[in-house]
Amino acid sequence: MATMRAVDLIERKRDGGELSSEEIRWLLDGYVKGDVPDYQMAAWLMAVCVRGMSEGETVALTRAMVESGGQIDLSSLPGRKVDKHSTGGGGDTVTLVLVPLMAAAGLVCVKMSGRSLGHTGGTIDKLEAIPGLRTELTMAELLSQADRLGCVVADHTSELVPADRLLYELRDVTGTVPSIPLIAGSILSKKLAGGADAIVLDVKCGDGAFMRRHEDARELARTLVSVGNRLGKMFSALITSMEQPLGRMAGNALEVRQAIDVLTGAGPGDLREVVLALGGELLVLSGEARSADEARERLVSLLEGQEAWNKFRSLVVAQGGDVEAVDNPELLPRAMRVVEVRAERGGYVEKLAARAVGQAAGMVGAGREVKGQAVDLGAGVELLAKVGDEVVRGQPLARLHIGRPDRYEEAHAVLEGAFRIASERPGPPALVIERLP
Amino acid sequence: MATMRAVDLIERKRDGGELSSEEIRWLLDGYVKGDVPDYQMAAWLMAVCVRGMSEGETVALTRAMVESGGQIDLSSLPGRKVDKHSTGGGGDTVTLVLVPLMAAAGLVCVKMSGRSLGHTGGTIDKLEAIPGLRTELTMAELLSQADRLGCVVADHTSELVPADRLLYELRDVTGTVPSIPLIAGSILSKKLAGGADAIVLDVKCGDGAFMRRHEDARELARTLVSVGNRLGKMFSALITSMEQPLGRMAGNALEVRQAIDVLTGAGPGDLREVVLALGGELLVLSGEARSADEARERLVSLLEGQEAWNKFRSLVVAQGGDVEAVDNPELLPRAMRVVEVRAERGGYVEKLAARAVGQAAGMVGAGREVKGQAVDLGAGVELLAKVGDEVVRGQPLARLHIGRPDRYEEAHAVLEGAFRIASERPGPPALVIERLP
Repeated sequence: MATMRAVDLIERKRDGGELSSEEIRWLLDGYVKGDVPDYQMAAWLMAVCVRGMSEGETVALTRAMVESGGQIDLSSLPGRKVDKHSTGGGGDTVTLVLVPLMAAAGLVCVKMSGRSLGHTGGTIDKLEAIPGLRTELTMAELLSQADRLGCVVADHTSELVPADRLLYELRDVTGTVPSIPLIAGSILSKKLAGGADAIVLDVKCGDGAFMRRHEDARELARTLVSVGNRLGKMFSALITSMEQPLGRMAGNALEVRQAIDVLTGAGPGDLREVVLALGGELLVLSGEARSADEARERLVSLLEGQEAWNKFRSLVVAQGGDVEAVDNPELLPRAMRVVEVRAERGGYVEKLAARAVGQAAGMVGAGREVKGQAVDLGAGVELLAKVGDEVVRGQPLARLHIGRPDRYEEAHAVLEGAFRIASERPGPPALVIERLP
Repeated sequence: MATMRAVDLIERKRDGGELSSEEIRWLLDGYVKGDVPDYQMAAWLMAVCVRGMSEGETVALTRAMVESGGQIDLSSLPGRKVDKHSTGGGGDTVTLVLVPLMAAAGLVCVKMSGRSLGHTGGTIDKLEAIPGLRTELTMAELLSQADRLGCVVADHTSELVPADRLLYELRDVTGTVPSIPLIAGSILSKKLAGGADAIVLDVKCGDGAFMRRHEDARELARTLVSVGNRLGKMFSALITSMEQPLGRMAGNALEVRQAIDVLTGAGPGDLREVVLALGGELLVLSGEARSADEARERLVSLLEGQEAWNKFRSLVVAQGGDVEAVDNPELLPRAMRVVEVRAERGGYVEKLAARAVGQAAGMVGAGREVKGQAVDLGAGVELLAKVGDEVVRGQPLARLHIGRPDRYEEAHAVLEGAFRIASERPGPPALVIERLP
């Protein structure tokens, strides 16, 4: 093979051409090693953003990314290994419920998660609202807990998919984030390196999601499932609505409280429904249930019989967390001040903008604006009314749990603006919009 | 004005939007100062390559580039100041004839040129084939010579358009060279910084040119003239054919010999015609002639009356060159070995591929493959037959003047392949294809 030159590969993509698997691997490996400089990678990423990539190119990119670092080998553990991923969207408590529920169903679920930027923290931030809970586990700890308990939630180790970290940092500052093949490579490489056999993808769609339009969400879901399957794992995807927030909480300790509610048989119905739908996919994919109905029935009984709740408690104990704080959620971190947002008129909640709710939560301290910033564990938004609810003038619609007071007034106005109240009762809000494949 | 962020400007261009003049200036100035890193500029350049720029954006980019460095102020000199630019194409001796011809016509022509990469050297390399001739002049020397003589050919000083040098180096390694707005910005910024009032552009088109297709050449010419006029100078453009090489020489001393031939009343007719056409444009643009016919008549008489030749000799003397070597071109550098390429069959030359002729010249030492490499001043290609000529089998078609012998055999094969001989006499080759505006 003749010597490759990055500029030739950039030019081919610029002109809408296709790169071979060897060429994509050469480019990615060169970038990770530092032989291909940032400016060449940035030009190639922009060409990909505008020209796209074929499915074959996306497969090659994903495989090269996975192999840029270590992988978690769960093959020695008994049972099917499952995993899930949600594409960005604020106020998503699903992971905290789904992981112990899968373990309760006899599956192994090792969830690697992060501390993303954004309005509310990542799953790791949320779990750290439980005093003492550790998420930075050694590989030996992780494997031992997975074997003993069937579930783990751990911080991304730096050895997994180093190419993704490098690429993501570059994409973030070069306007090359919104590209379906690049997003797919990022998501799938991390899932594949995580060692699961069957993976369900929760592709959020709507106002509060990264993908605001249904056709974009469908294209992402289609690419994820198709490329994931070509890489030898079982994938399915649900497109779920993030038009209004899922559940009633946006914030770290607030979402832990909400997860506990769902695990102990209470909690918001929409969140519970999405958990059951995603979990059902995993049971069917991994052969633990023959149909969606059978899977659902089984999962409902595991929630009602407290098996999932017991797994959650065991996970907290195994990872060093204070189990008293989950048995009595009043002991979880709390915001220093709580303020209500009230309805300015009576009627029906017609719209509840998920993005604005997330922004308001971020403004009072639930998220981070720059890397390394501490999140306020008690801060966030608690929703008291959702789409379709009838409200009277002056009734509390939401509570702001204020951790950082400096932007409180702005947060209050944003949260107030998130609600649109109409005289007519709206149709029922969408929840699970579509299943792929 | 809110703080600008490079990533917002990149994203806007990625999505096909338009940037304001202030935004373009902010981006360019930031890049020159080092505040905007290479990787962000590379992403923006790729977005421009694929999405294009409006004429207003191109005007703003060009203006910001001009103002990134110093400019040559010729306003204190009497007479109209003219300049020309040719877009890339091998074997172009036009500048060496046109500059003294313009001075002979009473105009001031200060030509800044370079030592480009490529198959044959830049104008500066060609002039350095004249022993002793200096092209690195101080601004005082340049202005004094322009005042005294009306003509100068000097090396680009590093103070002119530093943004172009930085951008060009980045574009070269990021696959972002072939973008008409970026090419226009690069060409026009250097012409505007050069201080002329009227500028003619020789946009080469065809096999040996950067623009191979007529529609691309026309789009470039149209953009150059339109943007140039909006920046307050008089511009016109000729699209000229580089299907076969212009003239009969490709190489440094070889082209000087050819320029001397044209200046002394001999030399190839096609080269002379293009010089007269471009010079005519400048005489009309600057008000020195009322029509193309009047301009042509005047220029022919300046060539026939040796006035242009005398200006050339004075320029050589003024810049320290050995005037004996131009009076007796046998004293110019010569290649160590000359080999003929002969016709393998009889017939008519139907095609003579300009690109292959340039490549062959480069292979025997006329050009440079990497920055800073020395060119062989005597090396190159001498064409003995051109399109339309009748040839018999075994007749010499060209001579290779061999400076670097290591790739001689390859050069011979390439040059042989540049000729296509047919039984039928072809139609006359195109020369000046189109005039704009």
